[in-house]
Amino acid sequence: MLKLSKLHAPSIRLSGGSADPFSTNLAEWIRPVKQDQEYDLCLMGVPLSKSSISFSGAHLHPQQFRKCWTSFTTYNWEQDIDLKPLRIADLGDIEMHITDIAQCHQNIYEANLSVQRAYPEAVSIAVGGDHSITAPLVKAIVEATGARIGIIQFDAHLDVRDLSYGGASNGTPMRNLIESNTIRGEDIVTIGLRNFANSRQYRDYAEQHGMNLVSQREVQQAGIETIIAQAMAILDQKCDQIYVTFDIDVLDQSVVPGVPAIGPQGLLPVELFESAYILGKWEKVQAIDFVCVDPSVDFRDASTRVSLHIFLHFLSGFYRRKM
Amino acid sequence: MLKLSKLHAPSIRLSGGSADPFSTNLAEWIRPVKQDQEYDLCLMGVPLSKSSISFSGAHLHPQQFRKCWTSFTTYNWEQDIDLKPLRIADLGDIEMHITDIAQCHQNIYEANLSVQRAYPEAVSIAVGGDHSITAPLVKAIVEATGARIGIIQFDAHLDVRDLSYGGASNGTPMRNLIESNTIRGEDIVTIGLRNFANSRQYRDYAEQHGMNLVSQREVQQAGIETIIAQAMAILDQKCDQIYVTFDIDVLDQSVVPGVPAIGPQGLLPVELFESAYILGKWEKVQAIDFVCVDPSVDFRDASTRVSLHIFLHFLSGFYRRKM
Amino acid sequence: MLKLSKLHAPSIRLSGGSADPFSTNLAEWIRPVKQDQEYDLCLMGVPLSKSSISFSGAHLHPQQFRKCWTSFTTYNWEQDIDLKPLRIADLGDIEMHITDIAQCHQNIYEANLSVQRAYPEAVSIAVGGDHSITAPLVKAIVEATGARIGIIQFDAHLDVRDLSYGGASNGTPMRNLIESNTIRGEDIVTIGLRNFANSRQYRDYAEQHGMNLVSQREVQQAGIETIIAQAMAILDQKCDQIYVTFDIDVLDQSVVPGVPAIGPQGLLPVELFESAYILGKWEKVQAIDFVCVDPSVDFRDASTRVSLHIFLHFLSGFYRRKM
Amino acid sequence: MLKLSKLHAPSIRLSGGSADPFSTNLAEWIRPVKQDQEYDLCLMGVPLSKSSISFSGAHLHPQQFRKCWTSFTTYNWEQDIDLKPLRIADLGDIEMHITDIAQCHQNIYEANLSVQRAYPEAVSIAVGGDHSITAPLVKAIVEATGARIGIIQFDAHLDVRDLSYGGASNGTPMRNLIESNTIRGEDIVTIGLRNFANSRQYRDYAEQHGMNLVSQREVQQAGIETIIAQAMAILDQKCDQIYVTFDIDVLDQSVVPGVPAIGPQGLLPVELFESAYILGKWEKVQAIDFVCVDPSVDFRDASTRVSLHIFLHFLSGFYRRKM
Amino acid sequence: MLKLSKLHAPSIRLSGGSADPFSTNLAEWIRPVKQDQEYDLCLMGVPLSKSSISFSGAHLHPQQFRKCWTSFTTYNWEQDIDLKPLRIADLGDIEMHITDIAQCHQNIYEANLSVQRAYPEAVSIAVGGDHSITAPLVKAIVEATGARIGIIQFDAHLDVRDLSYGGASNGTPMRNLIESNTIRGEDIVTIGLRNFANSRQYRDYAEQHGMNLVSQREVQQAGIETIIAQAMAILDQKCDQIYVTFDIDVLDQSVVPGVPAIGPQGLLPVELFESAYILGKWEKVQAIDFVCVDPSVDFRDASTRVSLHIFLHFLSGFYRRKM
Amino acid sequence: MLKLSKLHAPSIRLSGGSADPFSTNLAEWIRPVKQDQEYDLCLMGVPLSKSSISFSGAHLHPQQFRKCWTSFTTYNWEQDIDLKPLRIADLGDIEMHITDIAQCHQNIYEANLSVQRAYPEAVSIAVGGDHSITAPLVKAIVEATGARIGIIQFDAHLDVRDLSYGGASNGTPMRNLIESNTIRGEDIVTIGLRNFANSRQYRDYAEQHGMNLVSQREVQQAGIETIIAQAMAILDQKCDQIYVTFDIDVLDQSVVPGVPAIGPQGLLPVELFESAYILGKWEKVQAIDFVCVDPSVDFRDASTRVSLHIFLHFLSGFYRRKM
Ligand SMILES: [Ca+2]
Ligand SMILES: [Ca+2]
Ligand SMILES: [Ca+2]
Ligand SMILES: [Ca+2]
Ligand SMILES: [Ca+2]
Ligand SMILES: [Ca+2]
Ligand SMILES: [Ca+2]
Ligand SMILES: [Ca+2]
Ligand SMILES: [Ca+2]
Ligand SMILES: [Ca+2]
Ligand SMILES: [Ca+2]
Ligand SMILES: [Ca+2]
Repeated sequence: MLKLSKLHAPSIRLSGGSADPFSTNLAEWIRPVKQDQEYDLCLMGVPLSKSSISFSGAHLHPQQFRKCWTSFTTYNWEQDIDLKPLRIADLGDIEMHITDIAQCHQNIYEANLSVQRAYPEAVSIAVGGDHSITAPLVKAIVEATGARIGIIQFDAHLDVRDLSYGGASNGTPMRNLIESNTIRGEDIVTIGLRNFANSRQYRDYAEQHGMNLVSQREVQQAGIETIIAQAMAILDQKCDQIYVTFDIDVLDQSVVPGVPAIGPQGLLPVELFESAYILGKWEKVQAIDFVCVDPSVDFRDASTRVSLHIFLHFLSGFYRRKM
Repeated sequence: MLKLSKLHAPSIRLSGGSADPFSTNLAEWIRPVKQDQEYDLCLMGVPLSKSSISFSGAHLHPQQFRKCWTSFTTYNWEQDIDLKPLRIADLGDIEMHITDIAQCHQNIYEANLSVQRAYPEAVSIAVGGDHSITAPLVKAIVEATGARIGIIQFDAHLDVRDLSYGGASNGTPMRNLIESNTIRGEDIVTIGLRNFANSRQYRDYAEQHGMNLVSQREVQQAGIETIIAQAMAILDQKCDQIYVTFDIDVLDQSVVPGVPAIGPQGLLPVELFESAYILGKWEKVQAIDFVCVDPSVDFRDASTRVSLHIFLHFLSGFYRRKM
Repeated sequence: MLKLSKLHAPSIRLSGGSADPFSTNLAEWIRPVKQDQEYDLCLMGVPLSKSSISFSGAHLHPQQFRKCWTSFTTYNWEQDIDLKPLRIADLGDIEMHITDIAQCHQNIYEANLSVQRAYPEAVSIAVGGDHSITAPLVKAIVEATGARIGIIQFDAHLDVRDLSYGGASNGTPMRNLIESNTIRGEDIVTIGLRNFANSRQYRDYAEQHGMNLVSQREVQQAGIETIIAQAMAILDQKCDQIYVTFDIDVLDQSVVPGVPAIGPQGLLPVELFESAYILGKWEKVQAIDFVCVDPSVDFRDASTRVSLHIFLHFLSGFYRRKM
Repeated sequence: MLKLSKLHAPSIRLSGGSADPFSTNLAEWIRPVKQDQEYDLCLMGVPLSKSSISFSGAHLHPQQFRKCWTSFTTYNWEQDIDLKPLRIADLGDIEMHITDIAQCHQNIYEANLSVQRAYPEAVSIAVGGDHSITAPLVKAIVEATGARIGIIQFDAHLDVRDLSYGGASNGTPMRNLIESNTIRGEDIVTIGLRNFANSRQYRDYAEQHGMNLVSQREVQQAGIETIIAQAMAILDQKCDQIYVTFDIDVLDQSVVPGVPAIGPQGLLPVELFESAYILGKWEKVQAIDFVCVDPSVDFRDASTRVSLHIFLHFLSGFYRRKM
Repeated sequence: MLKLSKLHAPSIRLSGGSADPFSTNLAEWIRPVKQDQEYDLCLMGVPLSKSSISFSGAHLHPQQFRKCWTSFTTYNWEQDIDLKPLRIADLGDIEMHITDIAQCHQNIYEANLSVQRAYPEAVSIAVGGDHSITAPLVKAIVEATGARIGIIQFDAHLDVRDLSYGGASNGTPMRNLIESNTIRGEDIVTIGLRNFANSRQYRDYAEQHGMNLVSQREVQQAGIETIIAQAMAILDQKCDQIYVTFDIDVLDQSVVPGVPAIGPQGLLPVELFESAYILGKWEKVQAIDFVCVDPSVDFRDASTRVSLHIFLHFLSGFYRRKM
Repeated sequence: MLKLSKLHAPSIRLSGGSADPFSTNLAEWIRPVKQDQEYDLCLMGVPLSKSSISFSGAHLHPQQFRKCWTSFTTYNWEQDIDLKPLRIADLGDIEMHITDIAQCHQNIYEANLSVQRAYPEAVSIAVGGDHSITAPLVKAIVEATGARIGIIQFDAHLDVRDLSYGGASNGTPMRNLIESNTIRGEDIVTIGLRNFANSRQYRDYAEQHGMNLVSQREVQQAGIETIIAQAMAILDQKCDQIYVTFDIDVLDQSVVPGVPAIGPQGLLPVELFESAYILGKWEKVQAIDFVCVDPSVDFRDASTRVSLHIFLHFLSGFYRRKM
């Protein structure tokens, strides 16, 4: 048995088998972690959504994410990349307490600390859950590595609500990281901020703490490649490692019907696919998460398929980094 | 302003107006509480469901319960009772903390304590929420009154899970009350226990603590009036007051599609309507709750309508008690 | 072309064909009306629901009723009756005006008048639509026949709202018929009245006008056969003809999820099946309608299937009357 | 009490409260009208959809529009505008008759006449309802002001059906206004006309009456700013005031799944957001409406959110006009 | 590896783990088959529904049946039986061909033949799939045992369509077995036949072949225990073994919304629970199947829960047989 | 009666009537085929989906396609074309066998052979069904004409699965045509291939057989007009006729929620509308099909509306070809 704290196999497992010998689906490729094996990438589910301000079933996303693996192959046609040579493990899900949310956050911290120590070279991929998970995930990396971490946050929202209002919810991760001195505000780039979804007071807070803020319209006007290049330029010098967090609600409601805080005037999937590919290539990116998809209100898993495709584009970039 | 702790108006209020002068709907009759007024009955919403073992939107039930008020009149045709003379207040909803579930339970305790003290003569009606709320609600009554409380629990489940497994969840309220010495096991009558929904170990626990257990089939065979008469006989002598808790999952899945733990082989609505009417007449019943309806998975509010009808039959019985 | 006023073919027609030579479905049997042919029964759709107090798609019921014909055979197993010898025609749908509801009611009156004159011997079957249609349908029969008509109304509601409140809506047909001197109150038997769905004031009105009222519980306690026998005894002597109106909301919400005014504590389908069979046998019943099914909110056409089965039990009784 | 005719409070009201002191949601900001107060903008619900040709629940839109207020803030990030200084009132909903649609249109006329007279300086915002409401709304403004009104209509359809076919339905408002001599055809600019959703005969009618017609493809090719600039150039000289009507079905079915007449090849939300902002700035625009959203068939209120965002962009432009 | 032909693990497996040490859910108890182990009962999934006359997703039922295992315990409260001592194996699913339905039936035959030979003493449980699977399942048992098999069929339909009409579909299994001389008509008892769901011609066929036919109403009038006792009396002498097939569409549409051929006037779940318990006790019952549940059109898995409860009642009876 | 083999009228027919004399909807224009009449275009439904690898209700598409005809006019506003002069017939649906899928494919072959012979000059339009239907459709054309056929396939997938894996399913039509020597690989142009939806092995197969492959991104980068021009240039010289097959899953999941294999990163409707218009103008295009829309999982028929619009743009191009 592996020495990974607070991680266990999910209650439903994909067999991984396929009858067609001429294609490999993701379920055949991403298998449960095995002892004494090295990995390029480690994936873990973080099924927590009781920490959400609004009613959320985002804890169902890790399992739905895995179920969708049977519908996709390892082959990126556009780049002519077959991901199969990459070594990837599914570490399972982090254990959650039924009624103690602070304990859930503590479990996330402990689990990720143990993952960072067990696989210091691997890129870690967390599949949430709501956005509150990012704070303990990042804290564990800082604890494990001592590195100065930069964050690229794709989000419609700043996530800098005052923690005195409701505790460590999905409205607070960036403020949580800043006020716990885990991350400097200037080391955060937030991309995709949305009209009528934030307040001027929180913008003031973010700007006073040096956060780098990019609105949806600025992305559309400058082009996503430019925005990502600027983000990399801001963080490259001063940060040792980069953590990328994809809050799927940054996308337009017409493309991700299954996120709790849906809204119009969001980014488009191709903008995140492109971003993920570029960031996958960048050596400094050592951890990534996907949050705020609620499969219980989705339509035919469209939103989970989008988060899965972002993941696959990140892996494609990572393939370029490695191969 | 009233001195009721941790209670506030719900975010959406019914206007109470109706264009038809010849009928009175519930929304016109049950109005927000007013200061310096006496009441026969006080209703409060308890919108907590993060304490549920399985994913639950039961916190949405108080508001849906109120919205259905516009579809029902105050007139019980079968009994030829118009409820209008009863004095009833809507106290609003108990405040919940976003991430601290223990605090939520504390708020429920405080709110109900304040209600019991403000309206010692009134019957209090709590609209949950999941079943974890019953424990703090009962504790507050015991604190306020010092009475020996008997409980009549309608439930498919015993609710005596070990609190070390997940804390004060919706699987634990009866054990919670027993082990906190709030209630004696022998003062609990549980009606409607369901096949393949409990374990022999928990049954052993319940029996060892003297709980009085009645299965669904025993209800069908003996008839609900007999069962209720027996429950009253068990509790009447030794208890000062009776608390009735309706876990709506005691009903068959075909009649309440919107409870989290739906299942076949449940009780029928008419059995709860009859029970509620009889218990409404009984002087000792001073508090009542309705739990575990999740409007987010219901079909056309059928389950909320059932909980509302139970409430109306209780009121009809109460009318007989008073008038 | 037939001389039927305000009736036209529905926009979608069933072909009536079936590949299986060993069974006859209803769509093969009930065919569009043909000129110069005699019929035992005439069916017409009355697609009006803009006259409803609450939002209703009951105008979609006639067409859904026909679509379900392909799923049922003409064979009543319990009675060993094959309905095929009965001569039945589908007259199509009554034309509705888009914005003039009074004109819709006038069209219903004219269409039925023309039907009664064209087929004076046939039993006419109207598939609504909301309950407002019953008033013009009955008025046309009285105009055509001069008969004293008795009404057996299956309904959760009295339908005696004041017409000054909103006009000839689905809350008013019985009062409309009484106050227009079309029908005497004493010639109406209303069966299945529901708790918390009526007011004492309207009950007073109904009783003052001599209506015969039977609640849901009275049906359960006496048995439906007894209730129907009593209704027949009340009306048999004094009325020339009987009109039966089935407001499907008289049934319990668990069996007809697709009626606008669903509620618990309703009748059961078997009670209406039995009633329809008995009334089908009775010579005096010359017209019948089915109202207040809204297919747009139904679950898998369950409610339409119930109205269709009532119709088929009526036909089975009618078979006994004729054969 | 205000002297506003035929307007009453909606049956469900938002409390307006919020626990987070650092952001203001729309429900806190847009409050019920108060006597003796001046306003920059007045909003009223127009819950009429029985006038629709196809089955429509658009009468549910005003209330759903308000419910969505709790999910959006007053802060336009892209423009760095906080709308709070604007003085806005919710006048409530216009009363509708249950069965007399002509009376409903009369009520709309009377209510708006009374609003125009009570608040002659304020911009009036009508939230429908189906498109038939635009005719009486505009007639009331002409009656109140005597002004020559120009109309900018965003619509997939011309809305010039012959009134002899079905009366004043949602297919007729432009013809209704032209033929009642309320508006000249040349003073109407219709933007977003859709393929296979109109007929050549109606186009002929529109062109013969001088209406200015812009198809969806022409918008895509010229750019929405150019189209709006042209519309303003056409109307600016000859018209005293401009009325803007947003028929939400002008948008593509992929972005507004909840309009009755959905179809592909529609405009995109950003094109309406941009238009609304520009028109909000224009002094001549004194009235605006939003029609043909049916929340009962929508997916997670996506379409209502779009209509609400158009409204917010209009307010942002209006902020520039005023501040 | 086991020598079971055409059987493979399902693509999604339940982990079987549970955090609560005081109860055992079915997923912990029913585990994948292990080599060289003896079993009392063997369960296999038969995911075939392309053989259905109407559109059916019944092939999804085996997997949904397993997923529901996590929601039920092994404890039958009413009988005070804990099923755990029974030795049960999940053999997995029978392989299906994508486009060759005859091959699918051949695979079912081969798989069951191999199961009967590998576990001659065990009771075999097949979870369909549509009713066409019963024919090859029974043929394999006859081939393996040479026994004279009696069939107790719970079904709204006779299932004796002519095979020349569409081949071995779900409308034909009984005729298929009779005409292939696998089973004698007189050895079949069909219980629950429904009004307007069969034809007189097929009834004639069934009666001419000696089938024993019991309608829904006969069940209600005689009581299910009497009917089962009669069926056992008919078959006990002449048959060596009994095969029980539960077509879930025999139940009323209000309790199993997720079967393709739903209809009113069906049996009630308790009647099947009782039957399954009695038949579980009977030594001669050596095989059983559950067919025609389509999870893709169900509501919250209500129908799968019912089929699972029938299975659990059968197991409870079997426990009495064995223990 | 026409001599068309294996074709019959669909079970539900549109009446074709409309009350509005000023517009013509498609249902009024596309009428059932009449004997001894000449046609420019012939449409047939091909309701087969049992041949699908994944669960599919695509057999429901032909009928849903027809039902949507009532919502669209014959008038292409952008091109100012009224399609009415074109002579088009609805030939009905091809007969399918319930359990013999090979027979279904044979029926498709025979039906189309008979159509090609009866209407050699007409363009034939097949409305599927799943993609397996394309193989027998094309084989019939080759048999009837002896022509060298080129194929333009819009598809996210190559459809070159090995037929030994599951037979002639929807994953195989292109390989089926190549390996049966019906079509040369070099005569196929596949447009819209999608990331993570194919495998390198199948790409190798396709390239080895000379298929011309264009990915989604290549379409976006070059523009659809360029891609179509290139496809025409490739095929124009060497092929006698062109067959165009639209697998609707080539589109993005956000615009066609109702196709079985939905996914992100797909083409946009306007790209298919434009393609269809251009190809409609091209003399060589003599046959066309639409496959893989499943109305049973769609949202408000959005996907059927898209396939219908592609059809209408093709007709518009064809109008230019003819008029
Ligand atoms: Ca966030
Ligand atoms: Ca966010
Ligand atoms: Ca409970
Ligand atoms: Ca319970
Ligand atoms: Ca009624
Ligand atoms: Ca009624
Ligand atoms: Ca319009
Ligand atoms: Ca429109
Ligand atoms: Ca069967
Ligand atoms: Ca059956
Ligand atoms: Ca394909
Ligand atoms: Ca495809």
